[in-house]
Amino acid sequence: MYADRILREELISRIMTSEEAAQLFKDKMVVASSGFTKAGDSKAVLAALAERAKTEPLKITLMTGASLGHGTDGALAEADALSLRLPFQVDPILRKAINKGEVLFIDQHLGETVTLLKSNHFPKINIAVLEASRIEADGSIIPTTSVGNSASFAALADQVIIELNLAVPLSVCGIHDIFSAGEYPNRCEIPIVSVDDRVGRNSIYINPKKIVGVVITNKTDSPAEIAAPDASTSAIARHLVRFFSAEVEQGNLTKSLLPLQAGIGKVANAVLHGFMDGDFENLIMYSEVLQDSTFDLLDSGKMTFASGSSITVSEEYYLKIFHDFEKYKDKIVLRPQEISNAGEVIRRLGIIAINTALECDIYGNVNSTHVAGTNMMNGIGGSGDFARNAYLSVFVTQSSAKGDAISRIVPMVSHVDHTEHDVDVIVTEQGLADLRGLAPRQRAKVIIENCAHPDYKAELLDYYERACVRGGQTPHLLEEAFSWYGRLRENGTMKKFAD
Amino acid sequence: MYADRILREELISRIMTSEEAAQLFKDKMVVASSGFTKAGDSKAVLAALAERAKTEPLKITLMTGASLGHGTDGALAEADALSLRLPFQVDPILRKAINKGEVLFIDQHLGETVTLLKSNHFPKINIAVLEASRIEADGSIIPTTSVGNSASFAALADQVIIELNLAVPLSVCGIHDIFSAGEYPNRCEIPIVSVDDRVGRNSIYINPKKIVGVVITNKTDSPAEIAAPDASTSAIARHLVRFFSAEVEQGNLTKSLLPLQAGIGKVANAVLHGFMDGDFENLIMYSEVLQDSTFDLLDSGKMTFASGSSITVSEEYYLKIFHDFEKYKDKIVLRPQEISNAGEVIRRLGIIAINTALECDIYGNVNSTHVAGTNMMNGIGGSGDFARNAYLSVFVTQSSAKGDAISRIVPMVSHVDHTEHDVDVIVTEQGLADLRGLAPRQRAKVIIENCAHPDYKAELLDYYERACVRGGQTPHLLEEAFSWYGRLRENGTMKKFAD
Repeated sequence: MYADRILREELISRIMTSEEAAQLFKDKMVVASSGFTKAGDSKAVLAALAERAKTEPLKITLMTGASLGHGTDGALAEADALSLRLPFQVDPILRKAINKGEVLFIDQHLGETVTLLKSNHFPKINIAVLEASRIEADGSIIPTTSVGNSASFAALADQVIIELNLAVPLSVCGIHDIFSAGEYPNRCEIPIVSVDDRVGRNSIYINPKKIVGVVITNKTDSPAEIAAPDASTSAIARHLVRFFSAEVEQGNLTKSLLPLQAGIGKVANAVLHGFMDGDFENLIMYSEVLQDSTFDLLDSGKMTFASGSSITVSEEYYLKIFHDFEKYKDKIVLRPQEISNAGEVIRRLGIIAINTALECDIYGNVNSTHVAGTNMMNGIGGSGDFARNAYLSVFVTQSSAKGDAISRIVPMVSHVDHTEHDVDVIVTEQGLADLRGLAPRQRAKVIIENCAHPDYKAELLDYYERACVRGGQTPHLLEEAFSWYGRLRENGTMKKFAD
Repeated sequence: MYADRILREELISRIMTSEEAAQLFKDKMVVASSGFTKAGDSKAVLAALAERAKTEPLKITLMTGASLGHGTDGALAEADALSLRLPFQVDPILRKAINKGEVLFIDQHLGETVTLLKSNHFPKINIAVLEASRIEADGSIIPTTSVGNSASFAALADQVIIELNLAVPLSVCGIHDIFSAGEYPNRCEIPIVSVDDRVGRNSIYINPKKIVGVVITNKTDSPAEIAAPDASTSAIARHLVRFFSAEVEQGNLTKSLLPLQAGIGKVANAVLHGFMDGDFENLIMYSEVLQDSTFDLLDSGKMTFASGSSITVSEEYYLKIFHDFEKYKDKIVLRPQEISNAGEVIRRLGIIAINTALECDIYGNVNSTHVAGTNMMNGIGGSGDFARNAYLSVFVTQSSAKGDAISRIVPMVSHVDHTEHDVDVIVTEQGLADLRGLAPRQRAKVIIENCAHPDYKAELLDYYERACVRGGQTPHLLEEAFSWYGRLRENGTMKKFAD
């Protein structure tokens, strides 16, 4: 039974149902789970735990790599089973509970969770639930479509439950590269100097004594929802491709550019697709998430290698990729997220980082997370890891939203995730602002002129000019800086005179 | 002549006066200068340039390591000789010109300037002015009391002017460790795994053909102004020492803690002095600036090694240290600032970073730079390099200022330099807020309770509670968030009812 999936025989006796596994949890436990942007997450045990929590008081702290599959966080939140969640989420039900203050949420740089855990910034992990494609003879596990924080969760947790997912083909064995830089005070270098360097082992070691249950599942990851490029995202991609073409022409970059990183979502995906059109060759990627567009670039021959922490693709691509996975095996690697998102490696390799902004201000500060400065959307994710350390930090956003009732370029962002120091280029469908080497007053003019929506341009300029009269390195009129959000609350639009 | 200072004979013929050297500059040039927090700066050529600019139109871009000695930036600003300045300054006259918009200022993470320069984020450097203690036979120079960005300036500039400073004893030869991680796409690891690792060479290589002038000087650095600890800074130090003692007791840290970094200034200096009193041993430092307190710790035997980018001490300490410098030579090393401030090394070594905040908000966001969100004070300096990558990121500030008319703990900071993700501990004379593992709503309660000045506590709590009614991950009332600054402008105090 499962002879090709469980190579350590003693563990066969620990096979149990997800309901049985759910009984291993106790109220107030600290639980860790595999899963990074829906890939390689717990598909059975956390769901069963949510079921159990419907009928008895059971509240846990839950930490993951990043977001879980559809419904899992929602079911837990609905069952009132979460007291604290970290470091990232995208679930609408959980989001609501977080913003009501019913679930505490620690929004965290995805590359830092493991360091903070090892530094005792958090309580000890009681149980880790880790998805695997195979259990090796030494008790170590081959992960599935993501690595995330699983290796460190396995090392730090008191007990481990393995979800052995038969739906994941065994051909994934070999794409994972599990490395740890060790612990204070004896951490070492992360010896990656090229995106395709393999520096660790294939599997995640777990002390077999800690494995308290093995749950068999047979379910693919929740598919990524990829919206087709539209006029607006295509325009953003066009501006960026033109920018990079010019950089190549000026000799700042070769046609291979430098390793690419792209955040998840519609705009970033469209931008990556944009690289299909340009005069680029031998592109490489050092990112968190390998998306549909990554595989299109690999298939086209435009990209030669991609490093990430997860494969998060649409249903169509999932079927296509895993139907003939062998052809990708020497072109991709999945790493722990403290390695994929390590500032050390990002700075060393010189990443071109492309992430999505919720809003930008006229000086180039970026809000990635908080709607109107208060309500959490998803979380900062890896954007800060990359933006801080990149060769070039690009933020993309549409210039307006909700039928232009909201301007994405504002006088002052209502929440700061990335300061102006960490933002080199801003792109909207209106145009591109190259902020390199510009002081704040110069940045303001370029951002307003190139990126703002026409309906808001005059007022932004007026704000800036009146603020300059008062003076300062970063001229602001604090009493007015957030007035657009007030209008939005009161009139349903940021515009001065409602249409 | 200067046989012990100029070992490459041909350069003797290039000795000139500072006035002659000043003639080598042209209008609109990009100029780089040595100097890091007043140490090892240009003492003659930039001053002569300011003189020259008084009588003819001459405006330059000036980049340095960090701040220059007393008066230099001011003289340049007064002569209207600066169009753009980066990455840091502390001069009152220049500050005024910056805030008026007369001089553009790029405020920059001190560890990033070199990477940005090499990535063509800035125009090419025409002339670099570098202070040296000796010129070697191969044309390389031994720096003086700082390294800063000098090694990269030497490599990137078209022409170099050397200020050979006879006031600096030749005993400094040997304390510098010049290393570069190379350039994209072939950067390598920075192989430092221990604060005392030496990984580079003693001197800064310069192509001798580029050396267009040698100016002889004989002047010590501007002294640091160190204020004696007072009741308030002593209280901050006491809270921190108690915190670290508890960490040792709980087994989170050993008595050697982890490598210390401390920002410059009165509070940070007092805090370092605080470590003299605690039950610590074999402390080590990996910082930017070695201050008076560093040498006290070394003298006392409490500290065994200190790595920095400059020695910035008071007049008294300068005399004492350089009177018998040999005894420190195996205990200190000065590195380029992109190494002293490298995120890679800071994360690897696990630094305890202690920096000064201008103000903090109730969620733990920190403003280090902008008075009332608009006027530049000094600059972000290295605080961001350390806060982001540290094992523990501490920010210290007094809870109030100007006879309590200003609260340093505010509902929302008027400018964000460090987001809540990068702030682990906040300390005021009132107490210490340990924010590790806390979500924003929990952080608010601890910060208000432990750190706020009594005169502002009730109103902060009232703001927080009313914001919670509206909800959110980070509850705010945007229309009210900055109201305290309005009161300060209008009534001269942030207090609701003026005394």
